[in-house]
Amino acid sequence: MNYISFRNAAGSDTWGISVDGTVHDLGPSGLNLAASLKAAIEEGIFGKVSDAQLREAPTLAEAEVEFLPAVTDPLKILCIGVNYRTHQEETGKGLDMKAPTVFTRFADSQIGHLQPAQKSASTTQFDYEGELAVVISRPAHRLNVDEAMDHVAGYGIYNDFSCRDWQLEGAQWIPGKNFPGTGAFGPYLVPLADIEDFQSMTLETRVNGEVRQHAVMSDLYFTVPELIAYITGFTRLNPGDVIITGTPGGVGLFMEPPALLSDGDQVEVEISGLGILRNTVKDVA
Amino acid sequence: MNYISFRNAAGSDTWGISVDGTVHDLGPSGLNLAASLKAAIEEGIFGKVSDAQLREAPTLAEAEVEFLPAVTDPLKILCIGVNYRTHQEETGKGLDMKAPTVFTRFADSQIGHLQPAQKSASTTQFDYEGELAVVISRPAHRLNVDEAMDHVAGYGIYNDFSCRDWQLEGAQWIPGKNFPGTGAFGPYLVPLADIEDFQSMTLETRVNGEVRQHAVMSDLYFTVPELIAYITGFTRLNPGDVIITGTPGGVGLFMEPPALLSDGDQVEVEISGLGILRNTVKDVA
Repeated sequence: MNYISFRNAAGSDTWGISVDGTVHDLGPSGLNLAASLKAAIEEGIFGKVSDAQLREAPTLAEAEVEFLPAVTDPLKILCIGVNYRTHQEETGKGLDMKAPTVFTRFADSQIGHLQPAQKSASTTQFDYEGELAVVISRPAHRLNVDEAMDHVAGYGIYNDFSCRDWQLEGAQWIPGKNFPGTGAFGPYLVPLADIEDFQSMTLETRVNGEVRQHAVMSDLYFTVPELIAYITGFTRLNPGDVIITGTPGGVGLFMEPPALLSDGDQVEVEISGLGILRNTVKDVA
Repeated sequence: MNYISFRNAAGSDTWGISVDGTVHDLGPSGLNLAASLKAAIEEGIFGKVSDAQLREAPTLAEAEVEFLPAVTDPLKILCIGVNYRTHQEETGKGLDMKAPTVFTRFADSQIGHLQPAQKSASTTQFDYEGELAVVISRPAHRLNVDEAMDHVAGYGIYNDFSCRDWQLEGAQWIPGKNFPGTGAFGPYLVPLADIEDFQSMTLETRVNGEVRQHAVMSDLYFTVPELIAYITGFTRLNPGDVIITGTPGGVGLFMEPPALLSDGDQVEVEISGLGILRNTVKDVA
């Protein structure tokens, strides 16, 4: 099931499930099972919607909705750095990493599928990072690796657009990872139960159709349960919180010569079973 | 005026102003001018409470209230690293710094004055960082240095307790800065209009009475308006958001030999005109 957060033609925000190009509205403007997708996760509705409820819900064409970030309002977004061997090699970082590299993104930096990726006039190094996103289902603190997956709602795709100049100007990366309109998350949130063979799922990032990143989930250096165990070792996670698991090799900054993004570039991130997240770069003031 | 967020004897959270040991309750359990101190800032009430309102408000002895973090629920807490020359020298970092070092803290890591600083069993390097905290008064995005101070509500004291092993294990500091019960903020929030001579205000951190850090605000490497201009260059700030401006030299990790914190240690941070923030370290599981 492809859960989706979206804005309808009347301009109000809601959520639902998209099936073969038709969106079933389960949120405030539809069946109103919960106020938001995050609320649906909190209230145990996510992943449990019945066929009868789907039939009962009003529908829209997916082509006519405005995609919002898959989870619009997470309290915490934790991002993992250099978590694929290929990206460790190109950056020269993390080759003997003992613990995950963790930084954060504020929720107000997020955009949805097809919304423009905003390249600020104050950056000269705008780059992509295709990643797998993990969404938390229930409160999680100090979990063991064995317990971690019981706290996962599902997966989505993230493009952690980065202003490399602002990211690398100081020792901490926060400035380059929090510009408005740079955290693309979608198109869907897919329940964990729908995932058949996680290890063989592939991630591919394309810029104007050219493949830039290609990886398989079995290449993740720290696994999803290892990341959850580590993070809940220092902070409590709550339903709807997002962990962005790191990007593979092939980011624009480290190509020779560097191949950074400009106004009009179309960036797609595809992960098997999760869809394609597409955003076009747009210059903003 | 010393604005305070507190919990009353009945266990409900409110806010007010403390004058000579007496707290005037202006929040939900009192005069109810606003739901919280953050709401009072948003609604333009902060700094504008009249003498008549003070007289009208129910009062409590300050000794009988439980202090909460000065702002209990900021959306964003941005922390600045190595922003005093003395701390730059002891860490060997930032000596030619072109931009502030910025990391983040989640609001659920905060504690108030006199609440225990929680030393997790999973850290062996628990340390203090006495700092000046700046609270934002109104929405702020892409401000110039000249405009910045018009968006400041006031100042408070912060102790950015740090788990050095978790902070320095990876390249990014988030893990060591976000354990529950480690962001001490208080005792008060003091309106900007009450500050007479910012440059000469001193900051002193004492552990069991021994002075460990001593600095004067004129020593800040990046000034408060410079920090606000830089931060609002990449993210929007809102009323109640907090900027923690960095710690001076003298942290425990870099003493010779290192002098880290243990259960029972009492840490005080004092800043002229802002009071004394006192927390005692407590071992937790």
